[in-house]
Amino acid sequence: MRYSQLVGKTKKEAPHDETSKNAQLLIRAGYIEKEMAGTYAFLPLGLITLRKIMQVIREEMNAIGAQEVYLSSLQSPEVWKKSGRWDDHVVDVWFKSKLKNDVEVGLAWSHEEPLTQIMTKHVQSYKDLPIYAYQFSTKLRNELRAKNGLLRTREFIMKDLYSFDVDEAALENFYEKCKQAYFKIFDRLGIGDRTYLTFASGGAFSKYSHEFQTVCEAGEDTIYLDEAKKLAINKEVYFEDSLKELGVNKSDLKEVAAIEVGNIFSLKTRYSEPLGLNYTDENGAQKPVHMGSYGIGPARVMATIVELLSDEKGIVWPEALAPFKFHLVGLDLQDEAIKTQAENVYNHLTADGIEVLYDDRVDVAAGQKFADADLLGNPYRLVVSKKSGDKVEVKNRKSSETKLVTVEELSKL
Amino acid sequence: MRYSQLVGKTKKEAPHDETSKNAQLLIRAGYIEKEMAGTYAFLPLGLITLRKIMQVIREEMNAIGAQEVYLSSLQSPEVWKKSGRWDDHVVDVWFKSKLKNDVEVGLAWSHEEPLTQIMTKHVQSYKDLPIYAYQFSTKLRNELRAKNGLLRTREFIMKDLYSFDVDEAALENFYEKCKQAYFKIFDRLGIGDRTYLTFASGGAFSKYSHEFQTVCEAGEDTIYLDEAKKLAINKEVYFEDSLKELGVNKSDLKEVAAIEVGNIFSLKTRYSEPLGLNYTDENGAQKPVHMGSYGIGPARVMATIVELLSDEKGIVWPEALAPFKFHLVGLDLQDEAIKTQAENVYNHLTADGIEVLYDDRVDVAAGQKFADADLLGNPYRLVVSKKSGDKVEVKNRKSSETKLVTVEELSKL
Repeated sequence: MRYSQLVGKTKKEAPHDETSKNAQLLIRAGYIEKEMAGTYAFLPLGLITLRKIMQVIREEMNAIGAQEVYLSSLQSPEVWKKSGRWDDHVVDVWFKSKLKNDVEVGLAWSHEEPLTQIMTKHVQSYKDLPIYAYQFSTKLRNELRAKNGLLRTREFIMKDLYSFDVDEAALENFYEKCKQAYFKIFDRLGIGDRTYLTFASGGAFSKYSHEFQTVCEAGEDTIYLDEAKKLAINKEVYFEDSLKELGVNKSDLKEVAAIEVGNIFSLKTRYSEPLGLNYTDENGAQKPVHMGSYGIGPARVMATIVELLSDEKGIVWPEALAPFKFHLVGLDLQDEAIKTQAENVYNHLTADGIEVLYDDRVDVAAGQKFADADLLGNPYRLVVSKKSGDKVEVKNRKSSETKLVTVEELSKL
Repeated sequence: MRYSQLVGKTKKEAPHDETSKNAQLLIRAGYIEKEMAGTYAFLPLGLITLRKIMQVIREEMNAIGAQEVYLSSLQSPEVWKKSGRWDDHVVDVWFKSKLKNDVEVGLAWSHEEPLTQIMTKHVQSYKDLPIYAYQFSTKLRNELRAKNGLLRTREFIMKDLYSFDVDEAALENFYEKCKQAYFKIFDRLGIGDRTYLTFASGGAFSKYSHEFQTVCEAGEDTIYLDEAKKLAINKEVYFEDSLKELGVNKSDLKEVAAIEVGNIFSLKTRYSEPLGLNYTDENGAQKPVHMGSYGIGPARVMATIVELLSDEKGIVWPEALAPFKFHLVGLDLQDEAIKTQAENVYNHLTADGIEVLYDDRVDVAAGQKFADADLLGNPYRLVVSKKSGDKVEVKNRKSSETKLVTVEELSKL
């Protein structure tokens, strides 16, 4: 990709109304643009990174036997009334609207009910189970206050997985499998070492649910962390009896701010019973399906990575998530020979299938180009200039050391 | 993928309230499920095919230099008021809702205004142009009547491309380029030979817009087709003066039903002027950006293909769009030797990276399995049974002829 043609350029100033580091950096770097409070558009670079995050999640979901589906945003009241979650007093984040005939519709803030409803058409016998279905779909949530950039928005793509099992033991088995998949995902996304399995309130059918909380100053949650035991307790269940039950000592716990990057719930029969999702077992008896739900917000993960890994110069992406591996800066491009050399490096690398962003602007000073490269945060900055001769200067985003290498050596980096 | 584990099985009966062939077949085959009138969920097989359609479109968009973005569904009234399209009397398909503070928000039925608004932050000089940005994003449209299955829904993923150029000549140049890209797309999707460039009403700033209409009995549009000239005229502009202007003779025209699978609009300065999207030209003068918009609905294309290419037994996918290349039917699987052989064929092909759906059900009769294979419509049916020996029986979905081949020969198909 040539920087001169890129949709979404860097900005010198952060927008005045954005106080969070993640939104400031992502907007300045041209990854996202604010549409209104709590909604953001993804420009090409932001979408590439978001997609890479989604692809990591997708691979780990597929690896535990889950299949991808895609449910609608428009929601019929009927199915939500059955579970008692249509009422605004029960769920206070609904966006609702009306059809032409005045019938109310909702905009999906979650998908337990509609997917359970769909499964009633596909699950009759124990032979039809288990089923694990996930999606990346838009959630709309009428939050009182949108805040912290991509950390709390009114609209976001969510990966939500739902499990359908024959009984509690099978549910627990999958629940554990998904927990391990989540650890793998956060490891691959570069935040595994700061992300803790956290006990949180469980809702109607379980004592606890599990959150994955990433320790970060910008987080709006408070957790109590037992580093030795590698677990944490959300403030909402930080009571004497919980601590005792979970076998942790108050004196081992550290209070920290954290971002909830994922959560998993054992729903048991909370939705299958009101919606009539039953199956016939081996003996011909009718039984309710046991369910779990498992969420990750890819854009919130993206914001968390920016909050944690950026420095004073800008974003620092883990290599697996950067929009491009190489940020090639062409300097002295008025000189035809140097321009040709820079183009050759660009063409050589792209022909090898390597992701390169090529800053081909002729009328921009070196200092500005370097600042933009640092702000964008791709792993390797390359420079072709008068000084680089027939080689290419390479510098890792995280270091100040440069060295001269051949194009062939770059391909091996 | 093992059929026994697949989310979304075949159904014997079409739902009573679905009268369209596309919805009947896609629901019976387990590709989609109806959520409410005008909204459908995509089950795994349906999502695979939808994604393949999207990928063809994406490749052709990238090939003409367009970059992918992703805009939000929630829309601020302000930006739409500037263009005069917030009012329900002007645009009658809005879904609207309210934030907690009673401020109205809209749900995006299109994205001209928000993307134009975003571009005001990225376009200052002629050097920032042209820009071509497209997305696959959800559109919500409050249609009075949802009908014809996936052909007219209240919610759908749309590919919408927007072009931003310096002047009318540059716009026209890109418009022509996009037209050619659309022909390529519909060719690759297997409906090129029935899809005609169609003159339709142009709106405020152009005499005509262009639609891509696919001749099909299920279509709700009426077009007048000049087969020799390879063009058509939408009923809405079928007037003496239009015919004269377009150089067609009434006697050469045939009235047919058609489905609008794509459309392209020359918007000129219709949105850039009210939204203030200007640039400074080489001489320092302020000028408005010239825009075009270009849409394709991937799910409508999917429905069109089902309407056109299915037969009395079920769906017939073009090979490039089928969820799987091979539908492997295992028969006589109670016999351990045959079961092992079927598993070996499945493992061999999947290890080669070939897409195989393996009907591994033990307690289902051969007739049912064959009927399911025909209903699902993957290009090649394979059978491993007592009769096939150490070979595999192969049959093309479009023919009744079977032959025995080795697994190695299958890989070359």
